[in-house]
Amino acid sequence: MIPYDVILKKRNGDSLSKEEIEFFINGFVQGSIPDYQMAAMLMAIYFKGMNDEETAHLTMCKVHTGDIVNLSEIPGVKVDKHSTGGVGDTTTLVLAPLVAAAGIPVAKMSGRGLGHTGGTLDKLESIPGVKVDFSREEFINQVKKIGVAVIGQTGNLVPADKKMYALRDVTATVDSIPLIAASIMSKKIAAGTDAILLDVKVGSGAFIPDPVEARKLAKLMVDIGSRVNRKVTAMLTDMDQPLGSHIGNTLEVKEAIEILRGEHAGTPLFEVSLTLGGYLAYMGGASANPTDGRKLMEKLISDGSGLKKFAQLIEAQGGNPKVTEDVKLMPQAKHEVEILSKKSGFVNSFKTASIGMAALILGAGRLTKDDPIDPSVGLIIKKRIGDQVERGEPIATIYGNDEEKMKQATERFLEAIAINGEKPNVPPLILDTITQDKLTMRL
Amino acid sequence: MIPYDVILKKRNGDSLSKEEIEFFINGFVQGSIPDYQMAAMLMAIYFKGMNDEETAHLTMCKVHTGDIVNLSEIPGVKVDKHSTGGVGDTTTLVLAPLVAAAGIPVAKMSGRGLGHTGGTLDKLESIPGVKVDFSREEFINQVKKIGVAVIGQTGNLVPADKKMYALRDVTATVDSIPLIAASIMSKKIAAGTDAILLDVKVGSGAFIPDPVEARKLAKLMVDIGSRVNRKVTAMLTDMDQPLGSHIGNTLEVKEAIEILRGEHAGTPLFEVSLTLGGYLAYMGGASANPTDGRKLMEKLISDGSGLKKFAQLIEAQGGNPKVTEDVKLMPQAKHEVEILSKKSGFVNSFKTASIGMAALILGAGRLTKDDPIDPSVGLIIKKRIGDQVERGEPIATIYGNDEEKMKQATERFLEAIAINGEKPNVPPLILDTITQDKLTMRL
Repeated sequence: MIPYDVILKKRNGDSLSKEEIEFFINGFVQGSIPDYQMAAMLMAIYFKGMNDEETAHLTMCKVHTGDIVNLSEIPGVKVDKHSTGGVGDTTTLVLAPLVAAAGIPVAKMSGRGLGHTGGTLDKLESIPGVKVDFSREEFINQVKKIGVAVIGQTGNLVPADKKMYALRDVTATVDSIPLIAASIMSKKIAAGTDAILLDVKVGSGAFIPDPVEARKLAKLMVDIGSRVNRKVTAMLTDMDQPLGSHIGNTLEVKEAIEILRGEHAGTPLFEVSLTLGGYLAYMGGASANPTDGRKLMEKLISDGSGLKKFAQLIEAQGGNPKVTEDVKLMPQAKHEVEILSKKSGFVNSFKTASIGMAALILGAGRLTKDDPIDPSVGLIIKKRIGDQVERGEPIATIYGNDEEKMKQATERFLEAIAINGEKPNVPPLILDTITQDKLTMRL
Repeated sequence: MIPYDVILKKRNGDSLSKEEIEFFINGFVQGSIPDYQMAAMLMAIYFKGMNDEETAHLTMCKVHTGDIVNLSEIPGVKVDKHSTGGVGDTTTLVLAPLVAAAGIPVAKMSGRGLGHTGGTLDKLESIPGVKVDFSREEFINQVKKIGVAVIGQTGNLVPADKKMYALRDVTATVDSIPLIAASIMSKKIAAGTDAILLDVKVGSGAFIPDPVEARKLAKLMVDIGSRVNRKVTAMLTDMDQPLGSHIGNTLEVKEAIEILRGEHAGTPLFEVSLTLGGYLAYMGGASANPTDGRKLMEKLISDGSGLKKFAQLIEAQGGNPKVTEDVKLMPQAKHEVEILSKKSGFVNSFKTASIGMAALILGAGRLTKDDPIDPSVGLIIKKRIGDQVERGEPIATIYGNDEEKMKQATERFLEAIAINGEKPNVPPLILDTITQDKLTMRL
């Protein structure tokens, strides 16, 4: 087999065999296939796609280029949730303690953020003292002891993905559905959990804004799960506006804590978190169905077990559990300014990615992976699509440490919110749920 | 400007500006744009194409990455002919002396062959003593003195093309019409001639077998010529069977000499050579039109001036001019065997590239650029499409130095010729001529 022939085959629109995919990916990881041949292959895949079977082979081939986390020492069904990312997306901080409180082990490896705000790890680290770097043993022991751990990646997971992603990032081949699906699924499978719940975002703040494309991605990932014998469910959820009202690292921790305290009931972040939680409870065997699972989540909020579990998690990872009682123990921004509406009318739409950019300007996110993050800054949005607004009414509060940046962020925010006289339709929060029920386990 | 954006733009099917093309090509040649980004760009161009204007910009940008041969010391219109290559394509050896004999300076830089037989340089070097490596000054002086020189490339011509071609060759991006057009045209323009005649081959032995694609290529190159203010004419000629009957290095020199002696009149090699010659005479100002040009070529054969010029060329380049009188002075193969037809009927078709492979097996060509060539070996084909053949009748003579290789080549030849009961249509020799007459000079 020679690399040229495999590129040519894909370029001509033919399907690659398992052996051809393995030859190409392994050759690339080992260095016998150079970057330029992989770059040509990636662009050919961008144009010619991959069918479900090829994508499943690509996924598993990538998994086997590195370590697979072994969670077998932890009893029970290990579940994991993955979000394709968006603005104000704090569901992990709500769900990790809630699901653990339901008796389902949560052994989560998470990532740092690149873009508008920090990732889950950055948010956790905004709690004074919290650490996220642990050995595999410490990680397993913590899950065994308190049922939950959220740490950074340990071990050499999916090196093929790191190397391919770095190349895709500079060759305009990121936005290919099969390449995205194989990337996400390979990382989730290597993380060693038994069941995976995918939260695929749709809309102006999503990685894939178009609902048709996002649905394709969701279906493909669920199908890959079937092909490689993993339980996978995907939900399509709205990201046409920020999910939580709080954007920024400590602000998002604050909102998660407040939800665990029973506040914000009925808000989009609350609703999406609890619906996801219902599925996780069901997939993890703690409830007979997702509806019962959701009721269980509500109970774990109202009886305080979720909040208590969050305090335990924080303490186990070296942080001050008192933040769950007093969120002001987290870093606070120096300045707090209200943004007033310049118009009367209804909120019609958000440029959600631009709202994220406003947070980034304040210092909540990073553009390159070595940029520092300011945990204290961000914004709280007071209006959602469909809400009525009066001219001069506060529509957001902005938290910052630099008045010039706050001015820029305010401008960015005002550009990103469209207010006019017509009352718009409010987009549905959960567009669809895609399960494997009707798919055969093929492997 | 960043490389990513330019790749993205082409990937999305948009046209690139002159500035974007220059940024990308110059960056690639200088090393600031790595191979993998160029590989992604080449694959994007393969899928999304380039319009005529982009291709012209690409051509000229490539030209300017290196030297441009300055032929201004040589008086007169300098013309050049380029063939896209095929089997038994010996027109350069016929035309260089004939056109020079017409008083048009022939300052030709030629190439070595990769594939079934040697290139023009290899063929010339099969004449004892002939050298093809000269300095620019020696080259110019020879043209000034005797009106003709055929040498290997001097100077650093189109480094962008060398670097891009090496990458295309390993990334399955060779067969893209705009990339092929820019590659050919950039090299021809850098070679410094005023007028270019392109012989674009069509059929089973051509680089681009499909007539529709070949015509696109021809039109595109003629159009590029208009855009960059060069006289360019293209002819589409048949390569559904070998052009000359002689295939192999000394054998092709022999056939060219014989044509210059007035033999082989009316054969396809004779006809194509003289038609091309008519256009070269016209483009070089030696005749009022291509028809008169062709008559001039015929006269220069019948009065012996073409053959005399070839002898001068050989002598000027260190070779023995007596080969024009006695072709046996060139290396001769040890063995000579006739191939007999196994069937009666009509020759219906040739797998022309396979005929080339038969010559390669004998040692006439090379697979990698450092392989040695055996000048003496090859074959003479006695039948063409439409000819009647009796079982047991000689259809070719094979010249070789290794009986095992001759056996393999014979098998290959017999597989490549289809003989059956139906008399086929004979493909036209010259399919079309594409001139700039109706195009405006746009630059």
